[in-house]
Amino acid sequence: MQTLSVALGERSYPIHIGTGLLDRTDLVLPCLAQKKVAVVTDTTVAPLFMERLAGALGRGGVEVVRIVVADGEEHKDWRTLNTIFDALLEQRCGRDCTLLALGGGVIGDLTGFAAATYQRGVQYIQVPTTLLAQVDSSVGGKTAINHPLGKNMIGAFHQPRLVLADLDTLKTLPERELRAGLAEVIKHGLIRDAAFFGWLEANLDRLLARDPDALGHAVMRSVAIKAEIVGKDERERGLRQLLNFGHTFGHAIETGLGYGVWLHGEAVAAGMAMAADLSRELGSLSEADAGRIGSLLERAGLPVAASGIDPKRMRQLMSIDKKAREGRIHFVLLERLGAATLRADVPAAAIERTLSRLAA
Amino acid sequence: MQTLSVALGERSYPIHIGTGLLDRTDLVLPCLAQKKVAVVTDTTVAPLFMERLAGALGRGGVEVVRIVVADGEEHKDWRTLNTIFDALLEQRCGRDCTLLALGGGVIGDLTGFAAATYQRGVQYIQVPTTLLAQVDSSVGGKTAINHPLGKNMIGAFHQPRLVLADLDTLKTLPERELRAGLAEVIKHGLIRDAAFFGWLEANLDRLLARDPDALGHAVMRSVAIKAEIVGKDERERGLRQLLNFGHTFGHAIETGLGYGVWLHGEAVAAGMAMAADLSRELGSLSEADAGRIGSLLERAGLPVAASGIDPKRMRQLMSIDKKAREGRIHFVLLERLGAATLRADVPAAAIERTLSRLAA
Repeated sequence: MQTLSVALGERSYPIHIGTGLLDRTDLVLPCLAQKKVAVVTDTTVAPLFMERLAGALGRGGVEVVRIVVADGEEHKDWRTLNTIFDALLEQRCGRDCTLLALGGGVIGDLTGFAAATYQRGVQYIQVPTTLLAQVDSSVGGKTAINHPLGKNMIGAFHQPRLVLADLDTLKTLPERELRAGLAEVIKHGLIRDAAFFGWLEANLDRLLARDPDALGHAVMRSVAIKAEIVGKDERERGLRQLLNFGHTFGHAIETGLGYGVWLHGEAVAAGMAMAADLSRELGSLSEADAGRIGSLLERAGLPVAASGIDPKRMRQLMSIDKKAREGRIHFVLLERLGAATLRADVPAAAIERTLSRLAA
Repeated sequence: MQTLSVALGERSYPIHIGTGLLDRTDLVLPCLAQKKVAVVTDTTVAPLFMERLAGALGRGGVEVVRIVVADGEEHKDWRTLNTIFDALLEQRCGRDCTLLALGGGVIGDLTGFAAATYQRGVQYIQVPTTLLAQVDSSVGGKTAINHPLGKNMIGAFHQPRLVLADLDTLKTLPERELRAGLAEVIKHGLIRDAAFFGWLEANLDRLLARDPDALGHAVMRSVAIKAEIVGKDERERGLRQLLNFGHTFGHAIETGLGYGVWLHGEAVAAGMAMAADLSRELGSLSEADAGRIGSLLERAGLPVAASGIDPKRMRQLMSIDKKAREGRIHFVLLERLGAATLRADVPAAAIERTLSRLAA
């Protein structure tokens, strides 16, 4: 097991990465204000891991409330959130209880937002079981639900007390989810660490074959990059916006196609290809580097363009992106591999050209 | 105009109390990150004050988005909240916009919670137009919506940037709302300031006759007490719980009878009568003081008992109160006029006796 931490003063917390962590009640107990934990998971993850985790907690003397919701991005909404609140109230969970998110990014975002708002805030723990959640969404305290007009539009910043990334859970992860998770891994290299991007080019086949050492390194390196950025800019006033590379296009794809049609990581992959194209278009990224990005994404089996969505609708959706300021879309662009920057002055014509090339 | 402030470090904010404040765009402008304000109000308040406020803002160069929702506690739910989000997104309100709550406690709670969660948090301003909102709910940053199983169960702590309490708005306040507001005024005397309670006994008739000086003093003194407490305990870890005097019983009445049947202040009045009775029952409050409380509430035309609700159901609802800890109900009780205390050790039999006397 390796441990990193997000440095946020009194809201700092550890991220443990390793194997066999679902049984490590000893890591959970010190975080609890009351020995009562509501485990929130979905119908896919529940049969795989719920009883193992709940059983371990129970043996540790913890009262466990089990909450199972429908699986999928299309359920990351008010309706599902309310079923969590219903269960918490029916099971008499008070302000001292702890929520535990057992699952992927959707479960983490939903559970985190439930924790941020239930009785004006209770604490929570992240136990991410997908590659995407382990390398990205479980760390940093961004919680949210979707709105029909925009992804993650309703939410809160609410840091977890603890993140347990159990690499064993990746063994049962569907192939498509593994690939989607790699999109965020690649993102971390692109925006912050050219050497890591090079390592990914050299080790992609090992990752796709689920080599445990390779996966462990990819998770560690991604979490280290994310934890460093979040520690410097928790509320996304500046630096943290770079983590949204590919997400302005990506969120528009997800909202436009309908939540759940593409996985988040797939939309981010296509979004990164578009953002790379736009960077190249504006002369900040070389043709060669843009080519390397596209070919790594393709080797990972990820989309590098969006289909089935009207470019006009994409533009419309992007204009209500959370990063928009006074109506201007802000884009995260690449200056080179490993270095990203935020740009508010992207000419509409350049966006048009990228969309006409990569969205249809 | 008089100004108080809530001292919370970088989240400190001023509360201005006086007349003609709806026109004081000069007080609003320095708070805005972008000259775009979404004014949220209800169908009752909109015809009274919306155009005056929006007109003044417009003349100050502010783009105003008008959002009007249904009036009443029964609409303080996620459905109404979603209509606010819909409007904000349709009107392209970004992270730099400011929400402005123009109305009573329901509008303030709803708008504050919308601000706490829209795009993971935008700033907001409180412009309370009822006595209850001016003396209590607009100050302190508690925001929430109701859940069928419990009042204010979903919410957040999110401080406003500014509170403008315009005493002129009280001129059009319905009699019943004025009386309901007095319940929270009386509460502030009871828990913290015996001299103020005495002043209320001496000046109740002036308050009911809406004497501007008397109302001004009642608002100032209430806000001063609340601001001091919130400054010392923003997150309700200790001291702030005393402000919930009468609210454990009161919330159970509101939830049990159905939101909107009684006004919040009415339920709090009956709840305070019950909490005073329980304090007397436990020997901490004298018979004489309990009598003074009951008679002041009655003179204010407020209920001092609950009817139409089963005592068993009340007990049940109280056990899921936010102040409950590990299943034990915590009560705010009086030690004497002007001094309250939190008690976790109230015998069930004493609660029974109070309920059998004052709830049926």
